Amino acid sequence: MTRFEPNLRIPGPVGLPPSVRAAGGRQMINHRSPEFAAMLVRVLDRMRPFFGTDNDIAILSCSGSGGMEAVVVNTISPGDRVLVLSIGSFGDRFAEVATAFGANVTKLDFEWGTAADPAVVRAHLAANPGYRAVLITHNETSTGVINPLAELAAVCREVQPEALILVDGISSIGAVPFEMDAWGVDVAVTASQKAWMSAPGLAMVAASRRAWHAMETTTGPRFYFDLRAHRKAHATGETPWTPAVAAFFQVDEGLRLLEQETTAGVFARHLACAAATRAAIAELGFPMLAAPAHASKTVTAVLIPDGLDWKAFNAAVTRRGIVLAGGQGKLTGKIFRVGHLGSATVEEILGVAAAFEGALIELGRPVTPGAAVAAAQRAALASAAAPVAEEK
Amino acid sequence: MTRFEPNLRIPGPVGLPPSVRAAGGRQMINHRSPEFAAMLVRVLDRMRPFFGTDNDIAILSCSGSGGMEAVVVNTISPGDRVLVLSIGSFGDRFAEVATAFGANVTKLDFEWGTAADPAVVRAHLAANPGYRAVLITHNETSTGVINPLAELAAVCREVQPEALILVDGISSIGAVPFEMDAWGVDVAVTASQKAWMSAPGLAMVAASRRAWHAMETTTGPRFYFDLRAHRKAHATGETPWTPAVAAFFQVDEGLRLLEQETTAGVFARHLACAAATRAAIAELGFPMLAAPAHASKTVTAVLIPDGLDWKAFNAAVTRRGIVLAGGQGKLTGKIFRVGHLGSATVEEILGVAAAFEGALIELGRPVTPGAAVAAAQRAALASAAAPVAEEK
Repeated sequence: MTRFEPNLRIPGPVGLPPSVRAAGGRQMINHRSPEFAAMLVRVLDRMRPFFGTDNDIAILSCSGSGGMEAVVVNTISPGDRVLVLSIGSFGDRFAEVATAFGANVTKLDFEWGTAADPAVVRAHLAANPGYRAVLITHNETSTGVINPLAELAAVCREVQPEALILVDGISSIGAVPFEMDAWGVDVAVTASQKAWMSAPGLAMVAASRRAWHAMETTTGPRFYFDLRAHRKAHATGETPWTPAVAAFFQVDEGLRLLEQETTAGVFARHLACAAATRAAIAELGFPMLAAPAHASKTVTAVLIPDGLDWKAFNAAVTRRGIVLAGGQGKLTGKIFRVGHLGSATVEEILGVAAAFEGALIELGRPVTPGAAVAAAQRAALASAAAPVAEEK
Repeated sequence: MTRFEPNLRIPGPVGLPPSVRAAGGRQMINHRSPEFAAMLVRVLDRMRPFFGTDNDIAILSCSGSGGMEAVVVNTISPGDRVLVLSIGSFGDRFAEVATAFGANVTKLDFEWGTAADPAVVRAHLAANPGYRAVLITHNETSTGVINPLAELAAVCREVQPEALILVDGISSIGAVPFEMDAWGVDVAVTASQKAWMSAPGLAMVAASRRAWHAMETTTGPRFYFDLRAHRKAHATGETPWTPAVAAFFQVDEGLRLLEQETTAGVFARHLACAAATRAAIAELGFPMLAAPAHASKTVTAVLIPDGLDWKAFNAAVTRRGIVLAGGQGKLTGKIFRVGHLGSATVEEILGVAAAFEGALIELGRPVTPGAAVAAAQRAALASAAAPVAEEK
């Protein structure tokens, strides 16, 4: 019997704030109407600062993977040589999408749990000229690692300035600083069920001036995901195809909440949640996949310690109302993941720490009641007190 | 000041019943969980009878146009010769999608407002052998015409049995009888914001055994819309990419309501609403685009009479809480459309008749108060009393 809502700690869909839920339950409206047009403008205007761009954004009715396809089919022609920097499942997916649409893909793999090394990327680009594009995952949801995107983009711009920089920012944009224009990113994609605190169903794709220009000569087929059709329709307050109206209502409300909190507040909350999560996990003696320097601010991947029965632990945690994510791909059965993005609060993370303590005590492991919660509490306070570091 | 919800009479998104709205406001769940899997199975099982198929259905997170793209990219290879039967904007869109993905498209156009003529189709197919597929709009939302699909499919099967029959059933399936297996339709698509009484965001695509087989050899690129990936994931209660969870909640609830009403009840309600709409419109002296024999059961296209100021009329109607759709493409400014699908009730249509009377009286036209309502009322009663005709 579940009396209360679970503490949904998967890295998306994230839990919805009450007002976002209410927005999802609204009656439909005509999607070709001034009311919809006004909402579309509000959403685009308030989303731009989170992308760090003055350029046009297209909102597609699909999930994040559809957004990745949109990035690829609009900028890469069949036969184009592209480089994919992969640090996990979603980097591999980016390569898979590009391959599916006929790109000539070179994948530069980095060990899962680590970030892409700018020096390695620099050497590779120097030795292999002529890439049409470099595809980069900003935050790798499968391993809980955030790439040093500003640095990676700078390397690309310096060594192969003609290459477009295409970024999967699905689980980062809106949660951590993202400066598309300043970093020289050409196309970036995110999705409604992540930082935007909404149900899945919308992907947002921003493009630089040169990327919008490049789309005119891309030769591959595209229709539903044609960003030019979206840009043109958005200019008159519409979408080319019927949009996911309820998801729009939710993102509109999510953005209102984010704006109220301020971007600095939103980013600080994600830092505090990430710090609290890692501190609690460390206190409980669980190893983490990512080194602190590249640890994601939106999801933490925890290695299942030898001797811990994952199924029994997850069952005990689930009974305490916490919903975790398992591992993906080759990490299945080896890690679990704690999401802390979008609507996540430090209080929810303290709840996770307390539930983990309880579950481990139930499983007979030597845990001091309150220790993980205390560690998380201290880490969150320290994070709040620290000067905000430049997150790149 | 709008005190009450509008009477949303566009042909989708349709108005949401209260319990469907509540479903849209539910908290998120893990989309990789037994709870989601159970919902997916419920949705697929209860949707099959409305498609008239025993075959597998894939549910994609996109709107109807995305579903049309899925139909095309999974079954048509670049260079394939295909025939598109077009009776309006959405037939043209089907041709546009096929063209975008490299098909060699022949478009057989029928006058907007009429249905495709099986004799003309038969002659064309006999004279032009070797089509890979025939693309047919079941219900043309832009003109308010329903094609004689069973008859058209029979002609295709007879004259060119190798050709796949691909059907846009977006605004028909779930509202009128659709017998995919019996009619020999190979692929059919619908979308959540139509008969299913939900927000837009999901497209459902069913395929015949030979269509599933054909997908294995289609050569064009596909990723997000790859139906094989969906079918494989559905077999284990999942979707390949993050699904539009809230739209799933709504379709699940919409199907519960439809099941409660029974398919016969749902189809009879649509017949009654269509009859009532046409009777009211006729009583008011407005001509209609479609002849009665091929008039759509889900949307009625009304020709704007000479001398009627459409903007003034629509403003007067809007003040009375009715939201109409205008014309599309070359019908812009020439017609308006009244949607009566999904959640539509006869009572809502009587409300439309009353509002039209009021608006026309306000505009100084000679209208007898109550006459259009009476005509609609009588037509609905006659429809309910009539034996249910075989709708094809």
